Amino acid sequence: MKITIVGLGVVGGSMAMALAQSGKHRIYGVDVDAATLDKAREMGIIEKEQLSLPEKLGDSELVILSIYPRDIAAFMQRHGGCFKPGTVVTDVAGIKGRYIDRIQAALPEGVDFVFGHPMAGREKRGIDFATAAVFKGANYILTPTPRNREESLCLVEALAREMGCKRVRRITPAFHDEIIAFTSQLTHAISVALVNSDIEGRDTGSFIGDSYRDLTRIANINPDLWSELFLGNKEHLLGAIENFEAQLDIIKEAVRQDDGEALRACFEKSSRRRQNLDV
Amino acid sequence: MKITIVGLGVVGGSMAMALAQSGKHRIYGVDVDAATLDKAREMGIIEKEQLSLPEKLGDSELVILSIYPRDIAAFMQRHGGCFKPGTVVTDVAGIKGRYIDRIQAALPEGVDFVFGHPMAGREKRGIDFATAAVFKGANYILTPTPRNREESLCLVEALAREMGCKRVRRITPAFHDEIIAFTSQLTHAISVALVNSDIEGRDTGSFIGDSYRDLTRIANINPDLWSELFLGNKEHLLGAIENFEAQLDIIKEAVRQDDGEALRACFEKSSRRRQNLDV
Repeated sequence: MKITIVGLGVVGGSMAMALAQSGKHRIYGVDVDAATLDKAREMGIIEKEQLSLPEKLGDSELVILSIYPRDIAAFMQRHGGCFKPGTVVTDVAGIKGRYIDRIQAALPEGVDFVFGHPMAGREKRGIDFATAAVFKGANYILTPTPRNREESLCLVEALAREMGCKRVRRITPAFHDEIIAFTSQLTHAISVALVNSDIEGRDTGSFIGDSYRDLTRIANINPDLWSELFLGNKEHLLGAIENFEAQLDIIKEAVRQDDGEALRACFEKSSRRRQNLDV
Repeated sequence: MKITIVGLGVVGGSMAMALAQSGKHRIYGVDVDAATLDKAREMGIIEKEQLSLPEKLGDSELVILSIYPRDIAAFMQRHGGCFKPGTVVTDVAGIKGRYIDRIQAALPEGVDFVFGHPMAGREKRGIDFATAAVFKGANYILTPTPRNREESLCLVEALAREMGCKRVRRITPAFHDEIIAFTSQLTHAISVALVNSDIEGRDTGSFIGDSYRDLTRIANINPDLWSELFLGNKEHLLGAIENFEAQLDIIKEAVRQDDGEALRACFEKSSRRRQNLDV
Protein backbone atom coordinates (compact mmCIF):
# COMPACT_ATOMS: atom_id res chain seq x y z
CA MET A 1 0.00 0.00 0.00
CA LYS A 2 1.10 3.57 -0.56
CA ILE A 3 1.20 5.42 2.74
CA THR A 4 2.20 8.95 3.69
CA ILE A 5 3.19 9.57 7.30
CA VAL A 6 3.06 13.24 8.24
CA GLY A 7 5.26 13.94 11.25
CA LEU A 8 8.21 11.61 11.80
CA GLY A 9 8.66 12.21 15.49
CA VAL A 10 8.92 9.41 18.00
CA VAL A 11 5.41 8.10 17.21
CA GLY A 12 5.31 8.70 13.45
CA GLY A 13 8.88 7.47 13.11
CA SER A 14 8.07 4.32 15.07
CA MET A 15 5.05 3.68 12.82
CA ALA A 16 7.23 4.09 9.75
CA MET A 17 9.71 1.60 11.19
CA ALA A 18 6.99 -0.89 12.07
CA LEU A 19 5.31 -0.62 8.66
CA ALA A 20 8.57 -0.68 6.71
CA GLN A 21 9.53 -4.05 8.17
CA SER A 22 7.18 -6.06 5.97
CA GLY A 23 8.52 -4.50 2.77
CA LYS A 24 4.91 -4.49 1.52
CA HIS A 25 4.40 -0.74 1.59
CA ARG A 26 5.68 2.30 -0.17
CA ILE A 27 6.00 4.89 2.62
CA TYR A 28 6.35 8.60 1.97
CA GLY A 29 7.56 10.71 4.87
CA VAL A 30 6.70 14.32 5.61
CA ASP A 31 8.30 16.44 8.31
CA VAL A 32 9.07 20.11 8.90
CA ASP A 33 12.58 19.13 9.96
CA ALA A 34 14.93 18.33 7.06
CA ALA A 35 17.37 16.41 9.29
CA THR A 36 14.55 14.14 10.41
CA LEU A 37 13.67 13.35 6.80
CA ASP A 38 17.32 12.65 5.99
CA LYS A 39 17.57 10.36 8.99
CA ALA A 40 14.40 8.49 7.98
CA ARG A 41 15.72 8.04 4.44
CA GLU A 42 19.05 6.76 5.76
CA MET A 43 17.21 4.32 7.99
CA GLY A 44 15.42 3.08 4.91
CA ILE A 45 11.98 3.53 6.44
CA ILE A 46 10.68 6.06 3.89
CA GLU A 47 11.04 6.41 0.13
CA LYS A 48 14.20 8.10 -1.04
CA GLU A 49 12.64 10.02 -3.96
CA GLN A 50 11.87 13.64 -3.16
CA LEU A 51 8.26 14.26 -4.15
CA SER A 52 6.38 17.38 -3.14
CA LEU A 53 3.80 17.21 -0.36
CA PRO A 54 0.85 17.38 -2.84
CA GLU A 55 2.43 14.60 -4.87
CA LYS A 56 2.90 12.38 -1.83
CA LEU A 57 -0.63 12.97 -0.55
CA GLY A 58 -2.14 12.52 -4.02
CA ASP A 59 -0.34 9.21 -4.50
CA SER A 60 -1.35 7.67 -1.14
CA GLU A 61 -4.16 5.32 -0.20
CA LEU A 62 -3.53 5.98 3.48
CA VAL A 63 -2.29 9.14 5.20
CA ILE A 64 -1.23 8.98 8.84
CA LEU A 65 -1.15 12.33 10.62
CA SER A 66 1.25 12.08 13.52
CA ILE A 67 1.14 15.78 14.38
CA TYR A 68 -0.17 17.84 17.30
CA PRO A 69 -3.94 17.43 17.73
CA ARG A 70 -4.53 21.16 17.30
CA ASP A 71 -2.85 21.12 13.87
CA ILE A 72 -4.95 18.34 12.32
CA ALA A 73 -8.00 20.39 11.22
CA ALA A 74 -5.76 23.09 9.73
CA PHE A 75 -3.73 20.46 7.87
CA MET A 76 -6.88 19.01 6.32
CA GLN A 77 -8.16 22.46 5.40
CA ARG A 78 -4.89 23.46 3.77
CA HIS A 79 -4.07 20.20 2.00
CA GLY A 80 -7.45 18.49 1.62
CA GLY A 81 -7.52 19.26 -2.09
CA CYS A 82 -4.41 17.13 -2.69
CA PHE A 83 -5.97 13.86 -1.56
CA LYS A 84 -7.43 11.53 -4.15
CA PRO A 85 -10.97 10.28 -3.59
CA GLY A 86 -11.12 7.15 -1.46
CA THR A 87 -8.07 8.03 0.60
CA VAL A 88 -8.20 6.98 4.23
CA VAL A 89 -6.69 9.42 6.73
CA THR A 90 -5.97 8.54 10.34
CA ASP A 91 -4.41 10.30 13.30
CA VAL A 92 -2.72 9.34 16.56
CA ALA A 93 -4.07 12.09 18.81
CA GLY A 94 -4.54 11.40 22.50
CA ILE A 95 -7.81 13.37 22.70
CA LYS A 96 -10.82 12.99 20.48
CA GLY A 97 -14.06 14.60 21.62
CA ARG A 98 -13.56 18.27 21.03
CA TYR A 99 -11.48 17.85 17.85
CA ILE A 100 -13.58 15.49 15.81
CA ASP A 101 -16.28 17.93 14.64
CA ARG A 102 -13.75 20.53 13.59
CA ILE A 103 -11.70 17.98 11.67
CA GLN A 104 -14.72 16.42 9.98
CA ALA A 105 -15.88 19.86 8.86
CA ALA A 106 -12.53 20.27 7.11
CA LEU A 107 -12.67 16.98 5.17
CA PRO A 108 -12.95 17.01 1.41
CA GLU A 109 -15.52 14.84 -0.34
CA GLY A 110 -14.49 11.19 -0.62
CA VAL A 111 -11.83 11.25 2.10
CA ASP A 112 -12.53 9.03 5.11
CA PHE A 113 -10.96 10.08 8.41
CA VAL A 114 -10.55 7.23 10.89
CA PHE A 115 -9.79 8.61 14.35
CA GLY A 116 -7.16 6.44 15.98
CA HIS A 117 -4.95 6.37 19.05
CA PRO A 118 -2.08 3.90 19.39
CA MET A 119 -1.48 3.44 23.13
CA ALA A 120 2.26 3.42 22.62
CA GLY A 121 4.91 6.03 22.80
CA ARG A 122 8.02 6.98 24.63
CA GLU A 123 8.95 9.79 26.97
CA LYS A 124 11.69 10.80 24.54
CA ARG A 125 11.01 12.96 21.51
CA GLY A 126 12.14 12.74 17.90
CA ILE A 127 13.01 10.09 15.35
CA ASP A 128 16.23 9.15 17.18
CA PHE A 129 14.06 7.45 19.79
CA ALA A 130 11.67 5.81 17.37
CA THR A 131 11.43 2.03 17.57
CA ALA A 132 9.02 -0.48 16.10
CA ALA A 133 9.13 -2.35 19.41
CA VAL A 134 6.74 0.09 21.13
CA PHE A 135 3.81 -1.43 19.24
CA LYS A 136 4.49 -5.03 20.17
CA GLY A 137 1.56 -6.14 22.29
CA ALA A 138 0.24 -2.58 22.54
CA ASN A 139 -3.37 -1.43 22.57
CA TYR A 140 -4.80 0.58 19.68
CA ILE A 141 -8.03 2.51 19.93
CA LEU A 142 -10.37 3.57 17.12
CA THR A 143 -13.24 5.99 17.69
CA PRO A 144 -15.48 5.47 14.65
CA THR A 145 -17.87 8.18 13.48
CA PRO A 146 -21.09 7.67 11.51
CA ARG A 147 -19.25 8.92 8.41
CA ASN A 148 -16.66 6.11 8.48
CA ARG A 149 -16.82 3.29 5.96
CA GLU A 150 -16.38 -0.14 7.53
CA GLU A 151 -13.57 -0.94 5.09
CA SER A 152 -11.63 2.14 6.22
CA LEU A 153 -11.89 1.07 9.85
CA CYS A 154 -10.74 -2.43 8.89
CA LEU A 155 -7.81 -0.98 6.97
CA VAL A 156 -6.48 0.92 9.98
CA GLU A 157 -7.20 -2.04 12.23
CA ALA A 158 -5.21 -4.34 9.95
CA LEU A 159 -2.28 -1.93 9.93
CA ALA A 160 -2.33 -1.71 13.72
CA ARG A 161 -2.11 -5.49 13.90
CA GLU A 162 0.62 -5.53 11.29
CA MET A 163 2.61 -3.14 13.50
CA GLY A 164 2.32 -5.67 16.32
CA CYS A 165 -0.59 -4.31 18.33
CA LYS A 166 -2.46 -6.92 20.33
CA ARG A 167 -5.85 -5.34 20.82
CA VAL A 168 -7.68 -2.90 18.59
CA ARG A 169 -10.82 -1.62 20.26
CA ARG A 170 -13.58 0.53 18.83
CA ILE A 171 -15.13 2.92 21.32
CA THR A 172 -16.95 6.24 21.26
CA PRO A 173 -14.94 9.46 21.33
CA ALA A 174 -16.56 10.33 24.67
CA PHE A 175 -15.53 7.04 26.28
CA HIS A 176 -12.06 7.37 24.75
CA ASP A 177 -11.58 10.71 26.45
CA GLU A 178 -12.97 9.42 29.74
CA ILE A 179 -10.75 6.34 29.93
CA ILE A 180 -7.66 8.07 28.54
CA ALA A 181 -7.99 10.78 31.17
CA PHE A 182 -7.49 7.95 33.65
CA THR A 183 -4.95 5.65 32.00
CA SER A 184 -2.80 8.29 30.34
CA GLN A 185 -3.34 11.89 31.40
CA LEU A 186 -3.78 11.17 35.12
CA THR A 187 -0.64 9.01 35.12
CA HIS A 188 1.35 11.84 33.57
CA ALA A 189 -0.07 14.38 36.05
CA ILE A 190 0.92 12.08 38.93
CA SER A 191 4.41 11.49 37.61
CA VAL A 192 5.02 15.22 37.13
CA ALA A 193 3.64 16.07 40.58
CA LEU A 194 5.78 13.35 42.18
CA VAL A 195 9.03 14.65 40.69
CA ASN A 196 8.08 18.24 41.42
CA SER A 197 7.34 17.41 45.07
CA ASP A 198 10.92 16.34 45.71
CA ILE A 199 12.88 18.63 48.03
CA GLU A 200 15.93 20.08 46.29
CA GLY A 201 19.46 19.17 47.34
CA ARG A 202 18.83 15.69 48.68
CA ASP A 203 20.86 13.74 46.06
CA THR A 204 17.67 11.80 45.49
CA GLY A 205 19.23 9.65 42.75
CA SER A 206 21.32 7.83 45.36
CA PHE A 207 18.27 6.71 47.28
CA ILE A 208 15.86 5.45 44.65
CA GLY A 209 14.86 2.00 43.55
CA ASP A 210 12.86 0.79 40.56
CA SER A 211 9.60 2.09 41.98
CA TYR A 212 10.72 5.72 41.77
CA ARG A 213 12.40 5.10 38.41
CA ASP A 214 9.20 3.62 36.98
CA LEU A 215 6.81 6.17 38.41
CA THR A 216 8.84 9.14 37.19
CA ARG A 217 9.91 7.98 33.72
CA ILE A 218 7.06 9.92 32.08
CA ALA A 219 7.75 13.07 34.11
CA ASN A 220 10.15 13.79 31.27
CA ILE A 221 7.37 15.12 29.10
CA ASN A 222 6.74 17.24 26.00
CA PRO A 223 5.33 20.44 27.55
CA ASP A 224 3.52 21.67 24.43
CA LEU A 225 1.87 18.40 23.55
CA TRP A 226 0.81 17.50 27.07
CA SER A 227 -0.53 20.91 28.03
CA GLU A 228 -2.70 20.61 24.94
CA LEU A 229 -3.84 17.10 25.89
CA PHE A 230 -4.59 18.13 29.48
CA LEU A 231 -6.56 21.24 28.55
CA GLY A 232 -8.28 19.47 25.67
CA ASN A 233 -9.69 16.88 28.07
CA LYS A 234 -10.24 19.14 31.03
CA GLU A 235 -13.45 17.81 32.58
CA HIS A 236 -12.51 14.14 32.38
CA LEU A 237 -9.02 14.81 33.69
CA LEU A 238 -10.28 16.84 36.65
CA GLY A 239 -12.68 13.99 37.46
CA ALA A 240 -9.88 11.41 37.28
CA ILE A 241 -7.62 13.51 39.51
CA GLU A 242 -10.40 13.86 42.06
CA ASN A 243 -11.11 10.13 42.12
CA PHE A 244 -7.41 9.51 42.61
CA GLU A 245 -7.16 12.07 45.40
CA ALA A 246 -10.08 10.44 47.19
CA GLN A 247 -8.24 7.11 47.19
CA LEU A 248 -4.99 8.71 48.32
CA ASP A 249 -6.94 10.38 51.14
CA ILE A 250 -8.13 6.97 52.32
CA ILE A 251 -4.50 5.85 52.59
CA LYS A 252 -3.45 9.10 54.27
CA GLU A 253 -6.25 8.88 56.79
CA ALA A 254 -5.42 5.25 57.57
CA VAL A 255 -1.79 6.19 58.19
CA ARG A 256 -2.82 9.14 60.36
CA GLN A 257 -5.12 6.90 62.43
CA ASP A 258 -2.57 4.04 62.64
CA ASP A 259 -5.23 1.90 61.01
CA GLY A 260 -3.30 -1.11 59.70
CA GLU A 261 -6.54 -2.90 58.87
CA ALA A 262 -7.68 -0.14 56.51
CA LEU A 263 -4.24 -0.01 54.88
CA ARG A 264 -4.19 -3.74 54.29
CA ALA A 265 -7.66 -3.50 52.72
CA CYS A 266 -6.36 -0.85 50.28
CA PHE A 267 -3.34 -2.99 49.42
CA GLU A 268 -5.38 -6.13 48.96
CA LYS A 269 -7.77 -4.33 46.63
CA SER A 270 -4.98 -2.82 44.54
CA SER A 271 -3.07 -6.13 44.40
CA ARG A 272 -6.16 -7.98 43.22
CA ARG A 273 -6.97 -5.36 40.60
CA ARG A 274 -3.40 -5.18 39.33
CA GLN A 275 -3.12 -8.96 39.10
CA ASN A 276 -6.39 -9.10 37.18
CA LEU A 277 -5.31 -6.38 34.80
CA ASP A 278 -4.53 -7.92 31.46
CA VAL A 279 -1.35 -6.02 30.73
CA MET B 1 33.11 -15.96 53.97
CA LYS B 2 30.52 -17.92 55.92
CA ILE B 3 27.16 -16.20 55.67
CA THR B 4 23.72 -17.06 57.01
CA ILE B 5 20.73 -15.51 55.29
CA VAL B 6 17.58 -15.60 57.41
CA GLY B 7 14.47 -15.32 55.23
CA LEU B 8 14.78 -16.55 51.65
CA GLY B 9 11.93 -14.52 50.18
CA VAL B 10 12.31 -12.43 47.08
CA VAL B 11 14.94 -10.16 48.69
CA GLY B 12 16.85 -12.72 50.78
CA GLY B 13 16.68 -15.22 47.92
CA SER B 14 18.01 -12.64 45.46
CA MET B 15 20.87 -11.84 47.84
CA ALA B 16 21.72 -15.53 48.11
CA MET B 17 21.75 -15.80 44.32
CA ALA B 18 23.93 -12.71 43.93
CA LEU B 19 26.39 -13.83 46.61
CA ALA B 20 26.50 -17.45 45.42
CA GLN B 21 27.67 -16.42 41.96
CA SER B 22 31.26 -15.78 43.00
CA GLY B 23 31.64 -19.19 44.60
CA LYS B 24 33.65 -17.47 47.34
CA HIS B 25 31.13 -17.87 50.13
CA ARG B 26 29.58 -20.62 52.14
CA ILE B 27 25.93 -19.58 52.47
CA TYR B 28 23.56 -21.08 55.01
CA GLY B 29 19.87 -20.49 54.43
CA VAL B 30 17.16 -20.19 57.05
CA ASP B 31 13.44 -20.00 56.32
CA VAL B 32 10.21 -20.97 58.05
CA ASP B 33 9.04 -22.57 54.81
CA ALA B 34 10.56 -25.98 54.09
CA ALA B 35 9.70 -25.82 50.37
CA THR B 36 11.62 -22.54 50.08
CA LEU B 37 14.69 -24.15 51.64
CA ASP B 38 14.42 -27.14 49.30
CA LYS B 39 14.14 -24.82 46.33
CA ALA B 40 17.17 -22.80 47.45
CA ARG B 41 19.20 -26.01 47.86
CA GLU B 42 18.14 -27.23 44.42
CA MET B 43 19.16 -23.89 42.95
CA GLY B 44 22.55 -24.38 44.56
CA ILE B 45 22.49 -20.99 46.26
CA ILE B 46 22.70 -22.33 49.85
CA GLU B 47 24.62 -25.15 51.49
CA LYS B 48 23.02 -28.58 51.21
CA GLU B 49 24.00 -29.81 54.68
CA GLN B 50 21.22 -29.56 57.23
CA LEU B 51 22.62 -27.77 60.25
CA SER B 52 20.43 -26.46 63.05
CA LEU B 53 19.76 -22.73 63.32
CA PRO B 54 22.18 -22.28 66.27
CA GLU B 55 24.86 -24.19 64.35
CA LYS B 56 24.43 -21.99 61.27
CA LEU B 57 24.45 -18.74 63.25
CA GLY B 58 27.41 -19.88 65.35
CA ASP B 59 29.43 -20.76 62.27
CA SER B 60 28.83 -17.46 60.39
CA GLU B 61 30.90 -14.29 60.15
CA LEU B 62 27.96 -12.45 58.62
CA VAL B 63 24.24 -12.90 59.24
CA ILE B 64 21.76 -11.21 56.92
CA LEU B 65 18.26 -10.81 58.34
CA SER B 66 15.81 -10.54 55.47
CA ILE B 67 12.72 -10.70 57.63
CA TYR B 68 9.91 -8.30 58.55
CA PRO B 69 11.26 -5.22 60.38
CA ARG B 70 9.08 -5.92 63.41
CA ASP B 71 10.62 -9.39 63.83
CA ILE B 72 14.26 -8.30 63.93
CA ALA B 73 14.53 -7.32 67.61
CA ALA B 74 12.75 -10.51 68.71
CA PHE B 75 15.04 -12.62 66.52
CA MET B 76 18.12 -11.07 68.11
CA GLN B 77 16.67 -11.54 71.59
CA ARG B 78 15.83 -15.17 70.98
CA HIS B 79 18.94 -16.22 69.07
CA GLY B 80 21.59 -13.68 70.13
CA GLY B 81 23.30 -16.28 72.30
CA CYS B 82 24.09 -18.43 69.23
CA PHE B 83 26.28 -15.82 67.51
CA LYS B 84 30.03 -16.02 67.97
CA PRO B 85 31.83 -12.82 69.04
CA GLY B 86 32.78 -10.57 66.13
CA THR B 87 29.84 -11.59 63.97
CA VAL B 88 28.42 -8.85 61.80
CA VAL B 89 24.64 -8.80 61.44
CA THR B 90 22.79 -6.74 58.86
CA ASP B 91 19.19 -6.26 57.82
CA VAL B 92 17.29 -5.09 54.74
CA ALA B 93 14.43 -3.24 56.46
CA GLY B 94 12.82 -0.29 54.69
CA ILE B 95 12.45 1.73 57.90
CA LYS B 96 15.12 2.49 60.43
CA GLY B 97 14.41 5.21 62.98
CA ARG B 98 11.98 3.64 65.36
CA TYR B 99 13.51 0.15 65.19
CA ILE B 100 17.17 0.81 65.78
CA ASP B 101 17.10 1.41 69.54
CA ARG B 102 14.99 -1.67 70.20
CA ILE B 103 17.26 -3.84 68.07
CA GLN B 104 20.47 -2.46 69.61
CA ALA B 105 19.10 -3.15 73.07
CA ALA B 106 18.72 -6.80 72.05
CA LEU B 107 22.30 -7.26 70.78
CA PRO B 108 24.67 -9.60 72.60
CA GLU B 109 28.19 -8.45 73.47
CA GLY B 110 30.58 -8.54 70.52
CA VAL B 111 27.94 -8.63 67.79
CA ASP B 112 27.94 -5.63 65.44
CA PHE B 113 24.63 -4.79 63.75
CA VAL B 114 24.99 -2.81 60.51
CA PHE B 115 21.64 -1.35 59.49
CA GLY B 116 21.26 -1.65 55.74
CA HIS B 117 18.65 -1.17 53.04
CA PRO B 118 19.20 -2.43 49.51
CA MET B 119 17.03 -0.31 47.22
CA ALA B 120 16.05 -3.27 45.16
CA GLY B 121 13.16 -5.63 45.20
CA ARG B 122 10.29 -6.86 43.17
CA GLU B 123 6.55 -6.58 43.47
CA LYS B 124 6.35 -10.38 43.51
CA ARG B 125 6.89 -12.41 46.67
CA GLY B 126 8.89 -15.52 47.40
CA ILE B 127 12.01 -17.27 46.19
CA ASP B 128 10.45 -18.13 42.83
CA PHE B 129 10.81 -14.47 41.87
CA ALA B 130 14.30 -14.02 43.28
CA THR B 131 16.94 -12.86 40.82
CA ALA B 132 20.46 -11.57 41.24
CA ALA B 133 19.73 -9.04 38.50
CA VAL B 134 17.79 -6.73 40.85
CA PHE B 135 21.02 -5.57 42.44
CA LYS B 136 22.78 -4.64 39.21
CA GLY B 137 23.31 -0.88 39.33
CA ALA B 138 21.08 -0.56 42.41
CA ASN B 139 21.50 1.78 45.37
CA TYR B 140 22.33 0.42 48.82
CA ILE B 141 21.93 2.46 51.96
CA LEU B 142 23.71 2.02 55.30
CA THR B 143 22.66 3.92 58.42
CA PRO B 144 25.66 3.61 60.74
CA THR B 145 25.29 3.93 64.49
CA PRO B 146 27.97 5.02 66.99
CA ARG B 147 28.34 1.38 68.02
CA ASN B 148 29.39 0.19 64.54
CA ARG B 149 32.99 -0.75 63.82
CA GLU B 150 34.31 0.75 60.59
CA GLU B 151 35.41 -2.69 59.40
CA SER B 152 31.85 -4.01 59.79
CA LEU B 153 30.48 -1.17 57.67
CA CYS B 154 33.15 -1.84 55.05
CA LEU B 155 32.27 -5.53 55.06
CA VAL B 156 28.61 -4.90 54.23
CA GLU B 157 29.59 -2.23 51.71
CA ALA B 158 31.93 -4.66 49.94
CA LEU B 159 29.21 -7.30 49.79
CA ALA B 160 26.75 -4.78 48.35
CA ARG B 161 29.24 -3.98 45.61
CA GLU B 162 29.92 -7.65 45.05
CA MET B 163 26.18 -8.14 44.49
CA GLY B 164 26.36 -5.50 41.76
CA CYS B 165 25.17 -2.39 43.58
CA LYS B 166 26.46 0.84 42.10
CA ARG B 167 26.21 3.25 45.01
CA VAL B 168 26.48 2.51 48.71
CA ARG B 169 25.65 5.58 50.77
CA ARG B 170 25.96 6.10 54.49
CA ILE B 171 23.27 8.37 55.96
CA THR B 172 21.58 8.87 59.32
CA PRO B 173 18.56 6.77 60.21
CA ALA B 174 16.46 9.96 60.34
CA PHE B 175 17.45 11.03 56.83
CA HIS B 176 16.93 7.48 55.60
CA ASP B 177 13.36 7.52 56.80
CA GLU B 178 12.75 10.99 55.36
CA ILE B 179 14.05 10.21 51.88
CA ILE B 180 12.60 6.70 51.75
CA ALA B 181 9.17 8.08 52.63
CA PHE B 182 9.49 10.01 49.38
CA THR B 183 11.26 7.60 47.00
CA SER B 184 9.64 4.39 48.17
CA GLN B 185 6.62 4.68 50.44
CA LEU B 186 5.00 7.63 48.63
CA THR B 187 5.44 5.87 45.28
CA HIS B 188 3.68 2.79 46.63
CA ALA B 189 0.87 4.90 48.12
CA ILE B 190 0.40 6.62 44.75
CA SER B 191 0.40 3.39 42.79
CA VAL B 192 -2.17 1.81 45.12
CA ALA B 193 -4.42 4.91 45.03
CA LEU B 194 -4.19 5.05 41.23
CA VAL B 195 -5.35 1.47 40.76
CA ASN B 196 -8.02 1.82 43.42
CA SER B 197 -9.40 4.96 41.75
CA ASP B 198 -10.27 3.07 38.58
CA ILE B 199 -13.98 2.74 37.91
CA GLU B 200 -15.02 -0.91 37.76
CA GLY B 201 -16.25 -2.54 34.56
CA ARG B 202 -14.39 -0.41 32.02
CA ASP B 203 -12.11 -3.16 30.63
CA THR B 204 -9.25 -0.85 31.53
CA GLY B 205 -6.61 -3.31 30.33
CA SER B 206 -7.62 -2.66 26.71
CA PHE B 207 -6.93 1.05 27.01
CA ILE B 208 -3.59 1.27 28.76
CA GLY B 209 -0.10 2.02 27.56
CA ASP B 210 3.27 1.70 29.24
CA SER B 211 2.61 4.69 31.49
CA TYR B 212 -0.24 2.96 33.32
CA ARG B 213 1.66 -0.34 33.33
CA ASP B 214 4.71 1.29 34.90
CA LEU B 215 2.85 3.39 37.44
CA THR B 216 0.77 0.47 38.71
CA ARG B 217 3.34 -2.35 38.78
CA ILE B 218 3.96 -1.83 42.51
CA ALA B 219 0.23 -1.67 43.32
CA ASN B 220 0.62 -5.43 43.57
CA ILE B 221 1.97 -5.20 47.08
CA ASN B 222 2.58 -7.28 50.20
CA PRO B 223 -0.15 -5.93 52.54
CA ASP B 224 1.50 -7.01 55.80
CA LEU B 225 4.96 -5.69 54.99
CA TRP B 226 3.82 -2.40 53.54
CA SER B 227 1.27 -1.55 56.21
CA GLU B 228 4.13 -2.01 58.67
CA LEU B 229 6.45 0.21 56.61
CA PHE B 230 3.79 2.93 56.20
CA LEU B 231 2.83 3.02 59.87
CA GLY B 232 6.45 2.72 60.98
CA ASN B 233 7.32 5.87 59.08
CA LYS B 234 4.09 7.74 59.64
CA GLU B 235 5.22 11.37 60.03
CA HIS B 236 7.62 11.36 57.10
CA LEU B 237 5.13 9.60 54.85
CA LEU B 238 2.33 12.04 55.71
CA GLY B 239 4.69 14.91 54.92
CA ALA B 240 5.66 13.36 51.57
CA ILE B 241 2.01 12.78 50.65
CA GLU B 242 1.17 16.39 51.48
CA ASN B 243 4.05 17.75 49.39
CA PHE B 244 2.89 15.58 46.51
CA GLU B 245 -0.72 16.69 46.87
CA ALA B 246 0.37 20.33 46.81
CA GLN B 247 2.09 19.75 43.45
CA LEU B 248 -0.87 17.84 42.07
CA ASP B 249 -3.08 20.74 43.15
CA ILE B 250 -0.96 23.13 41.10
CA ILE B 251 -1.60 20.98 38.03
CA LYS B 252 -5.29 20.62 38.84
CA GLU B 253 -5.71 24.35 39.31
CA ALA B 254 -3.88 25.08 36.04
CA VAL B 255 -6.21 22.70 34.19
CA ARG B 256 -9.26 24.23 35.85
CA GLN B 257 -8.13 27.74 34.88
CA ASP B 258 -7.11 26.70 31.33
CA ASP B 259 -3.66 27.97 32.21
CA GLY B 260 -1.38 26.40 29.60
CA GLU B 261 1.53 28.53 30.72
CA ALA B 262 1.39 27.18 34.29
CA LEU B 263 1.09 23.61 32.98
CA ARG B 264 4.08 23.99 30.71
CA ALA B 265 6.07 25.37 33.66
CA CYS B 266 5.23 22.23 35.68
CA PHE B 267 6.22 19.98 32.78
CA GLU B 268 9.46 21.82 32.12
CA LYS B 269 10.41 21.57 35.78
CA SER B 270 9.65 17.86 35.99
CA SER B 271 11.42 17.14 32.69
CA ARG B 272 14.55 18.96 33.83
CA ARG B 273 14.54 17.20 37.19
CA ARG B 274 13.95 13.78 35.69
CA GLN B 275 16.68 14.25 33.10
CA ASN B 276 19.10 15.34 35.83
CA LEU B 277 18.23 12.39 38.01
CA ASP B 278 21.08 9.95 37.96
CA VAL B 279 19.08 6.76 37.59
